[in-house]
Amino acid sequence: MQTIAIIGLGLIGGSLGLALRQAADEVGGPHYSVIGYDSDAQRLRQAEQRGAVDQASEYLAEAVRDAQIVMLATPVLAMRGVLAEIAPHLRAGAIVTDTASTKAAVLGWARKLLPAGARFIGGHPMAGSTGSLEEARPDLFKDAAYCLVTGKAADAGLSVDAEALQIIHDLIAVLGARPLLLDAETHDRCVAAISHLPFLTSIALVETVAESAERDLMRQLASSGFRDATRLAAGDPAMYQSIVLTNRAAITAWLDRYIEQLQAIRQRLQSAQERGDEGLLALFRDAQRHRKEIIG
Amino acid sequence: MQTIAIIGLGLIGGSLGLALRQAADEVGGPHYSVIGYDSDAQRLRQAEQRGAVDQASEYLAEAVRDAQIVMLATPVLAMRGVLAEIAPHLRAGAIVTDTASTKAAVLGWARKLLPAGARFIGGHPMAGSTGSLEEARPDLFKDAAYCLVTGKAADAGLSVDAEALQIIHDLIAVLGARPLLLDAETHDRCVAAISHLPFLTSIALVETVAESAERDLMRQLASSGFRDATRLAAGDPAMYQSIVLTNRAAITAWLDRYIEQLQAIRQRLQSAQERGDEGLLALFRDAQRHRKEIIG
Repeated sequence: MQTIAIIGLGLIGGSLGLALRQAADEVGGPHYSVIGYDSDAQRLRQAEQRGAVDQASEYLAEAVRDAQIVMLATPVLAMRGVLAEIAPHLRAGAIVTDTASTKAAVLGWARKLLPAGARFIGGHPMAGSTGSLEEARPDLFKDAAYCLVTGKAADAGLSVDAEALQIIHDLIAVLGARPLLLDAETHDRCVAAISHLPFLTSIALVETVAESAERDLMRQLASSGFRDATRLAAGDPAMYQSIVLTNRAAITAWLDRYIEQLQAIRQRLQSAQERGDEGLLALFRDAQRHRKEIIG
Repeated sequence: MQTIAIIGLGLIGGSLGLALRQAADEVGGPHYSVIGYDSDAQRLRQAEQRGAVDQASEYLAEAVRDAQIVMLATPVLAMRGVLAEIAPHLRAGAIVTDTASTKAAVLGWARKLLPAGARFIGGHPMAGSTGSLEEARPDLFKDAAYCLVTGKAADAGLSVDAEALQIIHDLIAVLGARPLLLDAETHDRCVAAISHLPFLTSIALVETVAESAERDLMRQLASSGFRDATRLAAGDPAMYQSIVLTNRAAITAWLDRYIEQLQAIRQRLQSAQERGDEGLLALFRDAQRHRKEIIG
């Protein structure tokens, strides 16, 4: 029997609990006992009622005391405090893993705050980051990429325990996710481009329209195109604040490259021939093809 | 019996035909006869088979000869040629209307090319612009805004016939759309922000990622956020080339304002406090609220 503590029971934590308990219920499935903790007492009850946990605990120390594996699923800026608080209560050899969207900062805190006997594995499931416990579901991670941070390069100072990595790797397979091994810096640089930059471009798009004097008219003209292009701007502000603040350097570099792309498009638009400009057409065709290659 | 010619039978033209014929079939409904034309003979047959037209014509001159109303639903850059070709064949008093995403250019061509007896009303349904005849449906325009260009300011030189405007206004009500009266310059400026700018920001986002050396890794990390934020980049390149080329000034002005927003965000990111920056949080909250106000 493996005892797994899940700290933070929102969309991700709730879905982890549901998925692990569902796997444990299968004939011949793994033997898990899931203990859940959330700082919000009401959410903790809801998680229990939904069957996302075997046992709900109102105390962090109590929740992690017997756990072989501790999964952190709180907003990223809350993780520093959680790591500090659980540190003295962890079992010897306990494996702590997280689910935050940025990895270098969390790894730094884990290195500083966890006791020598604990092992930390950085993790990041690429599944809906916005949402609440109500939307949690056991198949949230199915076929989704799930990043695990290996011991290379960037996370210098924190040695990744090979056995712990294997255990978390196996746990992720139980969720139906596709494990993706990479170092923390590569992770943070790539998600900055594919996830954090699109959030900021959505924010900028909304604010460009919102600051216009003709905003009321535009409201009547807005259709599915604007809705989709700005969907990320509807995401939880506090969650994105956490993410953006822990990945500033990478995001800033991508913002610069993105602005360069826009300036190139502006230039091309200025110099385009009125009747059928080949340069613009080629750019739009390239982007159409590239998007297909990227999102599959 | 009103004879309506639809020129161009893609998503928009096909849906217009289906909607008008469905209305005509209703008890007490209007009496319409829909003649369809498309430069693609195969698509013309398909439109006939789908019941989008009462009669298919392989010749533009023949298609418009008996029509009281001619609706242009070709790509915007093709409209200049269509207007020139139909001009000598229009009935006296015929009303020509279009469905293009930009209005000033089309109005200029109509003024130059149509005979004195014909009346032109600029139109633009805010319904899915990307798609083919296969996706046409009679309720495409239901509850969608449908812009009609009034005679104010920008379209100087082309006087809008009040009776013709009323007739097209009534026709649009039959489609279930919400008529929205505005002048051509206002229309072009507003759709540049709400529709053409988001297309270009999607293109820039795809190209930023596509030009990265880590594109293959990002492909594995891309999820629904990137997919939605770049959906417009999947749109028909030739159609968007037409749109962008006929609305350059307005789009360029919005691109500049958008780049200013991004630079402000970049600046804020640089100067943010590590633990919980209030400025960033306020920006994200504002954008979340503004988006809701804009898209409803």
